[in-house]
Amino acid sequence: MEVTDTFAVTRALYQGRIGLLPTMGYFHEGHLSLMDLLRSHCDTLVVSNFVNPTQFDKEADLAAYPRDVERDGELAAEHGVDIHFVPEVEEVYPPGSSTEVTVGAVALGMEGKYRPSHFVGVATVVAKLFAGLRPDIAVFGKKDAQQIAVLKGMVTDLRFPVEIVAAPLVREPDGLALSSRNVRLSREDREAALAISRGLFQAAMQIDAGERDAQRLEATVSRSISRLGADYVELVTADTMEPMSTLNGPAVLAVAAHVGDVRLIDNLSIEWDDAKPKPDRGLILDEPSRLGTLH
Amino acid sequence: MEVTDTFAVTRALYQGRIGLLPTMGYFHEGHLSLMDLLRSHCDTLVVSNFVNPTQFDKEADLAAYPRDVERDGELAAEHGVDIHFVPEVEEVYPPGSSTEVTVGAVALGMEGKYRPSHFVGVATVVAKLFAGLRPDIAVFGKKDAQQIAVLKGMVTDLRFPVEIVAAPLVREPDGLALSSRNVRLSREDREAALAISRGLFQAAMQIDAGERDAQRLEATVSRSISRLGADYVELVTADTMEPMSTLNGPAVLAVAAHVGDVRLIDNLSIEWDDAKPKPDRGLILDEPSRLGTLH
Repeated sequence: MEVTDTFAVTRALYQGRIGLLPTMGYFHEGHLSLMDLLRSHCDTLVVSNFVNPTQFDKEADLAAYPRDVERDGELAAEHGVDIHFVPEVEEVYPPGSSTEVTVGAVALGMEGKYRPSHFVGVATVVAKLFAGLRPDIAVFGKKDAQQIAVLKGMVTDLRFPVEIVAAPLVREPDGLALSSRNVRLSREDREAALAISRGLFQAAMQIDAGERDAQRLEATVSRSISRLGADYVELVTADTMEPMSTLNGPAVLAVAAHVGDVRLIDNLSIEWDDAKPKPDRGLILDEPSRLGTLH
Repeated sequence: MEVTDTFAVTRALYQGRIGLLPTMGYFHEGHLSLMDLLRSHCDTLVVSNFVNPTQFDKEADLAAYPRDVERDGELAAEHGVDIHFVPEVEEVYPPGSSTEVTVGAVALGMEGKYRPSHFVGVATVVAKLFAGLRPDIAVFGKKDAQQIAVLKGMVTDLRFPVEIVAAPLVREPDGLALSSRNVRLSREDREAALAISRGLFQAAMQIDAGERDAQRLEATVSRSISRLGADYVELVTADTMEPMSTLNGPAVLAVAAHVGDVRLIDNLSIEWDDAKPKPDRGLILDEPSRLGTLH
């Protein structure tokens, strides 16, 4: 495995079909499952590892974001990564950098509402990665459901010839969605956070039982997380992220909540098969994550 | 020469180093000189021909923009173009398209002030062309001096591995800068328009004679075009397009003026050589343009 810190040197190492997994590092089993998935779809597997400052609304959140590039490199090598691209901020944002990529309505609700500059930062940094690394295929995890919708729109609009693959959300055996932020949860907060996935799973059972009313599905999740500080619980269409009143097509039931001083997001993506909704609870680990709970 | 209308089919025809000349068509000798220049720097020469709706502030200007794709194709073939890329609006702006690329301060003055959405349209469409066509090198004419500064910033910021070449402005023997809009000038207006280049050439002589004061240089041009409707006459730095009070480095003396109902821009780019300013009057044709005056 090569470790690079410039776009040009990274491109110079390419052979064949290029797969890119953009990450902010501090890998957990969710990242590793994305590497494994992408490995079988490309010749050169590139993992970018860059904590993107422009997508953080709060300095404190950026400062608190966990980092361990060395450990990341070992994990990447074990999972068949060819190039671990770890640029400095100046390589991604050259001095005087001011160009921004803004997407439309898909970025306005939910995360866009609570973190106003978040998706400009995300769309801009991914545009840079796609422009500078020219991948053929890129993978993103479904945990960031709105991010996938935003990036699919960006790629289509800007005509990047990059195939976007949405990979399953990965959960702890008890349901907690894997997140690099989980390491910041105290034992008590981690227990309290389970209310999020429990609420989503209850909503999934209601959907399986025939419930189609958005308000009732949202209320189920809201009740479950009533002791946490919820930012939103919303049923939205899968592609445009517009609020739905009735579940009648591909959708996402999304939630953001504060647990202690950590903000967590989670969701249930609801696919359709044979004209019937199929709630996707994600990939549930057999054993507790080793990586996602390291302190 | 191949004629294509999709990004994918265009890319499928590539061999070796890719050169791109983005145009809005209705070729004149200025465009042809860019093709000739680029021809020697690439293996596959692509000319895009797309009247970009988002960079026009006024519907009427968009509607009046001259078009003749067939004639363009013949000229392109004569000048060694390999691929004439002529997309429909839907190929460049897919239905629901909403992503925009905005650049910073470099786009605020001059054209940015008088045509507020112009450079968002330019940066967005060129980002699409660079993302979708993945050229190695692209050429732009110095007539649009601020556009070059905007696009150099966009390319650096978004990390496109595209070399940007700025090619000389081309003028009629009497000094008028070639422009696709010149065909819309009446005989009288065309005569009146010469005041623009005359003013710039007078300023060039002053610079050669030692003048360094921005106000005096701008006044020379303003006096010359006093009978036209001037939008601005400004001496700005070549890279950031910031107003200069004293000519003390690479600069552009830029002007925009209305002649009849046609808006024309022109400029003197001022390079530095041996710590001395070298006003660049551009490339002056020996014989009057055939193409630039066709009605």
